[in-house]
Amino acid sequence: MRKIIVVALGGNAIKQADEAGTAEEQRRNVAITCRQLVSMLRYGHRLVITHGNGPQAGNLLIQQEAGAAEVPPQPLDIVGAMTQGQIGYMFQQTMQNMLWQEKMPLPVVSIVNQVLVSEDDPDYKDPSKPVGPFYTEEEAARIKKERPDYVIKEVKPKSVARRFRRVVASPDPIRNIEYVAIRRMVEGGMVVIASGGGGIPVVYDAEDNLRGTAAVIDKDKAGERLAEVVGADIFLILTDVDAARVHFGTPQEKAVRTVTLSEMRKLHAEGHFKAGSMGPKVLACMRFIEWGGQCAIITSLDKAVSALIGTAGTRVVPDPVAE
Amino acid sequence: MRKIIVVALGGNAIKQADEAGTAEEQRRNVAITCRQLVSMLRYGHRLVITHGNGPQAGNLLIQQEAGAAEVPPQPLDIVGAMTQGQIGYMFQQTMQNMLWQEKMPLPVVSIVNQVLVSEDDPDYKDPSKPVGPFYTEEEAARIKKERPDYVIKEVKPKSVARRFRRVVASPDPIRNIEYVAIRRMVEGGMVVIASGGGGIPVVYDAEDNLRGTAAVIDKDKAGERLAEVVGADIFLILTDVDAARVHFGTPQEKAVRTVTLSEMRKLHAEGHFKAGSMGPKVLACMRFIEWGGQCAIITSLDKAVSALIGTAGTRVVPDPVAE
Repeated sequence: MRKIIVVALGGNAIKQADEAGTAEEQRRNVAITCRQLVSMLRYGHRLVITHGNGPQAGNLLIQQEAGAAEVPPQPLDIVGAMTQGQIGYMFQQTMQNMLWQEKMPLPVVSIVNQVLVSEDDPDYKDPSKPVGPFYTEEEAARIKKERPDYVIKEVKPKSVARRFRRVVASPDPIRNIEYVAIRRMVEGGMVVIASGGGGIPVVYDAEDNLRGTAAVIDKDKAGERLAEVVGADIFLILTDVDAARVHFGTPQEKAVRTVTLSEMRKLHAEGHFKAGSMGPKVLACMRFIEWGGQCAIITSLDKAVSALIGTAGTRVVPDPVAE
Repeated sequence: MRKIIVVALGGNAIKQADEAGTAEEQRRNVAITCRQLVSMLRYGHRLVITHGNGPQAGNLLIQQEAGAAEVPPQPLDIVGAMTQGQIGYMFQQTMQNMLWQEKMPLPVVSIVNQVLVSEDDPDYKDPSKPVGPFYTEEEAARIKKERPDYVIKEVKPKSVARRFRRVVASPDPIRNIEYVAIRRMVEGGMVVIASGGGGIPVVYDAEDNLRGTAAVIDKDKAGERLAEVVGADIFLILTDVDAARVHFGTPQEKAVRTVTLSEMRKLHAEGHFKAGSMGPKVLACMRFIEWGGQCAIITSLDKAVSALIGTAGTRVVPDPVAE
């Protein structure tokens, strides 16, 4: 039973929250992640990998700002492309090394990958996604003047000096632009790394040309679109908890195990999953099953292989066919 | 007569020497370049694109240094990967837009691409390639202390305050690592952007694992290795002059037109081509014909299409077969 699996890796697969983000730290984390991914390939599954880029884009934005007197900072779409190169390289090389050591020399390739969004998305009206450095009130005022296109919001309590931050839209992903190329690569037996950081967000302009937009797409929602275009059987979201939970933070807290799409819809509607964290993951899983996927999983890296055989994680499956 | 053409683009295809390197400037240059490339696709040729990354890597190194107090700078291999994402994205999107407008919706895809070198390469003993910011004598002394692995050299005359710079090896490229994937993509009809910035330089360590090395590979020499693995018919180097010249800067100066491999070998041995600029381009062309290529071309962007049909540029062709 060889499956096509799209794996969406969270930030902790690359950089732990308490780390600065040196190349050594990131390589170590990537190696731990890749060891699990390689064991999936050992079962004969085909793998498409996607990943977040929050900490890397954040660091690059800080560097760009620090060097702004000498070098023009690049816009957010280019920053996204740069982190696709950076993170893609680390995963690609590490996977190649491990597969080579295991005598499974599959081609591994990371691609630059755009994802279509719409500037009519409601999130452009009231941007929700903080990016880049934190500012003091004075810095925030200065930046608002210098960059009238930026939206700056107060994201921390008044007691914190550096409490302002640029916010951008987090629009819903509509379509993976390089889907034909990705599909052919997967069909050709390659391990593909794509849609990094949720993909480079692009829109069609008035002349039907693609152009970048200042936005950040949720990487799980974009990963789900990727899963659709490669015809994935399984969509696997790896995060820092082993399962989604209902009644989170109360005595009734309980992990969600295998549930049907209808059951998950009900839990989602009841408001069990937080908008900024578990919510989009659950939503992405539901979308994947609605599209026609066999199984969507939310779990932690160390439970990934168990979750695939059904003994761990939160698993969303289709509703039983009516008789 | 549909050919596979590998095009190696110089720095001026992306950033002019007198520009700061804003995203707008780079996009404008990329658009001018892509218009020429699209006209090659109109003839039915298959295209593989490679490009330099000097100005972009330089800018990123400056930003990294400026932000070093807050964010750990990344090593040179990762910087290379980041510029592959950055430049790859600009070409990919621009080519897609133009091909779409021309009703030739070929898949265009940029990949993260490593190139194997050897740390036994003589250039590691006496590094020749300057990278990153210029330093004063005091800054150079401080950096030498902080980074004992860096080689700092005086690259400008004593009269210039900022005359010191980090230098790294520029080793000869041995092999393109992702060659299987690239070959399959080209055979599958995709326009592939690869080996950006000469490729991410990697070596095999003692355990036969790939790892990045602090080096910069000449993009034309790496482009030639790329031309070999895709079985290119034509290797086309686009630079800021329309042809290589003999007796450069003298009254005898003359453009080299179509020459055989033996004729070019003779000119090269006579020392007509400068080590830092035309030399590696001529060398890469000779290697391509030695490998079995049909024609290697050095010319400027605006002469590219004429050079393909033989009415412009420096063209190196195989020796006539002995009777």
